[in-house]
Amino acid sequence: MKEIIYFSKSQSVNVLDQTSLPFKVKYIEAKDYKEIIKLIKKLSIRGAPAIGVAGSFAAYLAMKDLKSKSHKDLVRILTLRLKEIASARPTAINLMWAVNRFQKLLSLNSQKGYLDISKLFLKEAKYIFNHEKKVSTLISKFGTSILFDNCKVLTHCNTGSLATTGPGTALGVIKMANKKYKGIKVYATETRPLMQGSRLTVWECEQSNLDCTLITDSMVSHTIKESMVDLVIVGADRIALNGDVANKIGTYQLAIACKYHKIPFYVAAPLSTFDFDTEKGSSILIEQRPSDEVTKIMGSRISQAKKVLNPAFDVTPNKLISGIITEKGIIKNPKKRVIIKLKDYCY
Amino acid sequence: MKEIIYFSKSQSVNVLDQTSLPFKVKYIEAKDYKEIIKLIKKLSIRGAPAIGVAGSFAAYLAMKDLKSKSHKDLVRILTLRLKEIASARPTAINLMWAVNRFQKLLSLNSQKGYLDISKLFLKEAKYIFNHEKKVSTLISKFGTSILFDNCKVLTHCNTGSLATTGPGTALGVIKMANKKYKGIKVYATETRPLMQGSRLTVWECEQSNLDCTLITDSMVSHTIKESMVDLVIVGADRIALNGDVANKIGTYQLAIACKYHKIPFYVAAPLSTFDFDTEKGSSILIEQRPSDEVTKIMGSRISQAKKVLNPAFDVTPNKLISGIITEKGIIKNPKKRVIIKLKDYCY
Repeated sequence: MKEIIYFSKSQSVNVLDQTSLPFKVKYIEAKDYKEIIKLIKKLSIRGAPAIGVAGSFAAYLAMKDLKSKSHKDLVRILTLRLKEIASARPTAINLMWAVNRFQKLLSLNSQKGYLDISKLFLKEAKYIFNHEKKVSTLISKFGTSILFDNCKVLTHCNTGSLATTGPGTALGVIKMANKKYKGIKVYATETRPLMQGSRLTVWECEQSNLDCTLITDSMVSHTIKESMVDLVIVGADRIALNGDVANKIGTYQLAIACKYHKIPFYVAAPLSTFDFDTEKGSSILIEQRPSDEVTKIMGSRISQAKKVLNPAFDVTPNKLISGIITEKGIIKNPKKRVIIKLKDYCY
Repeated sequence: MKEIIYFSKSQSVNVLDQTSLPFKVKYIEAKDYKEIIKLIKKLSIRGAPAIGVAGSFAAYLAMKDLKSKSHKDLVRILTLRLKEIASARPTAINLMWAVNRFQKLLSLNSQKGYLDISKLFLKEAKYIFNHEKKVSTLISKFGTSILFDNCKVLTHCNTGSLATTGPGTALGVIKMANKKYKGIKVYATETRPLMQGSRLTVWECEQSNLDCTLITDSMVSHTIKESMVDLVIVGADRIALNGDVANKIGTYQLAIACKYHKIPFYVAAPLSTFDFDTEKGSSILIEQRPSDEVTKIMGSRISQAKKVLNPAFDVTPNKLISGIITEKGIIKNPKKRVIIKLKDYCY
C-alpha cells in the first residue's frame, strides 16, 4: 500500500480517503491548504498522529500562493492560516503540536524570504512525517513487552497504519507482537458512530494476518468476562499533564470495564500527543460532531431522533490507566511528576 | 395505534413488523403457527413479554389444521408444535412460560375434543395478552416511585409498548413517570446491533412527548459522568432465582458503569420473566445471532469482518442491581430468599 498521505510531483498532497474504506481504496488530491482542512474535518484523514502530519502538509501548502506578497503580508497571512489549520479539529493535540512547530519556525525565520521559508516548511513537513513514522515504530516495539504468547487483546477505534505514518500506536503494538509471539488474538470494537473499528481495524488486521474478531461496543464487558480478554490497548488524542487521556468515545467505558474485571488497560501514544499545558483531562475540549453521524450510517437514515449527543471523545482518568506506551518507554501508573519530565524529550 | 399483535376476524394473527419501524408502519398477517415462529426469529415481534404473547397466539394457531386428526394424534402433534414454538428464541423465558401454560392446559384437558381444547387455547391466548397488558401497567405504576421531578434517566434497548401489550416495562415506568413528574429527561442508547433504541425507543418517546436524547452505546459512561444521569432502568429477558438478569447485550456494561458512578441500576420485568428453575445467571443460555446483524446495517454492508461475535444478551449479576420492579412491587437488592417467595404469585 502507498503511504496514507504523500506529496506528488506536482506539489499537491494526496490523501487516502478513509471514509470510503474498506470498500474503496481511493486517494484525494489536495492542491490547497483549505482542501486539507476539509479532509481533516470530514475525517478522510484521521487518527491523532496522522492529523498532525496532514496539518504539516497543509502548513506547507498554505505558503503556495503567497510568493508575490510583501514580506510583512507573507508572515501575517501565514500566521492566520496556521491558526486556521490548527483549529480544524479541537481535541487531537498532535495537530496543534505540528502547527506550533511551523509557527515557531516562522517566528525564528521571519526575516527570511519566501523561498527560504518555503524550503524550511517543506523540510519540516517531511521531518514530521518521518518523525511520526519513527516514533510509532518505537512505540510498537516497546509495547510488545506487555503482550505474550496466546494473548487476547481488545482494542478500540483504529490506531494502526491508517492513523499514523508508521505501523501505528495501539494497533502497531499488537501487529508487532503478532510477529514476536504466537497465538495473538484481537477483539476489535466496531466503534460507533463512525465504525473505525469495523471498517478500518478489521481491514488492517486482515492485511497483517492477525486473528481478529469484531464486536459491537455494547459487547465489550461481556466479551471481557466470557472470552477472558487479557488486556486492552487503545490510542490517545490528547494526554493531560496528570496522565488523564482523551480518546475516541467509548474509551472511558472500556477502562471502567477493565477496572471491574481487574485486567490491565494501556494507552499507546507518541509524545506529540501529550499536552503539557493542560493540567487535567477535565480541561480538554471535547469535539461535538454532527448528529447525522449517529442517525445515519453509510448515508442511510437509521433513526428519526431529534435530539442526539455526539461527543467524538471522552476522558479516561489516570487512575484507570495501567500504563502509557511512548517512544521513550512505558510510563506505568501515569502521574504528573513522571510525565512532566518527558517535556525535555519533546522536540 | 393498533395493538402490536391482534387476531383478525379471519382467525389470522396480525403482527406489527418492528424490523421496518420507525420508517414504515406495517402489519404482517400470519395464518399459521410456523409463520409466527418466523416472525419471532426475525424479530418482527420482540421484547420478552411480547414474545410470550406471540407464542400464545402461535399455540392457538398450531391447532387449526388438526381438526380431522384422531384425538391421540391431536395431543401428540400439538405437544411437538408447542415445543417448536417454545424454542423459537432461547433466552427470553416468557416464551417458555407462555407455552408451558398451554402444555399444562393440554395435559389437564387431554380427554376433551378438538373444539373444547381449541376454545380453551383461544381463551388462554387472550388471557395472556390481557395479563401482560395488566402487569405492565402495574410495573409502570410501581416503578414511578424511583423517579422524581427533573429526573434524568437512561435506558437501553426498547422496553415500551412495542415490547409488551401494555405501556411497557422500563420504558413503561418512564412514560408513567412523565405523567406524574415534571422535567423527566431520557437518554436512549441506540442498542447495536439491531438499533432497538434509536429506531423504537426514540419513536415511542416522541409519541409520548418524552424529552429523549439518543446516544450510541459507547457514550453511556461519558453521558453518565457529564450529564449527571440520576439512574438507569432496563428490562429483562430472563431473571434467575438469585436475581441475576439476562437482558439485551450491553446491559451488563451499563450496570458496571452505574456501579462505578454510584448511581442506581434498576430492572423492570413481570413475574413471567423469572426463571425459578435456574439458580444463577451463568446457567442461562445466551442466544448467538447471525454475524450479518453486525456487519450489515439496514441491508448495507459496513464491515468485511470474517469473524464476528453476536451474543444477543448478557448477564448482569445481582450484586450490580439496585432493584427489580415487578407487578408485585420492587425487590430491592434482589437475592434468592426474596425471589423464591414470588413463585407463589405465579399464575
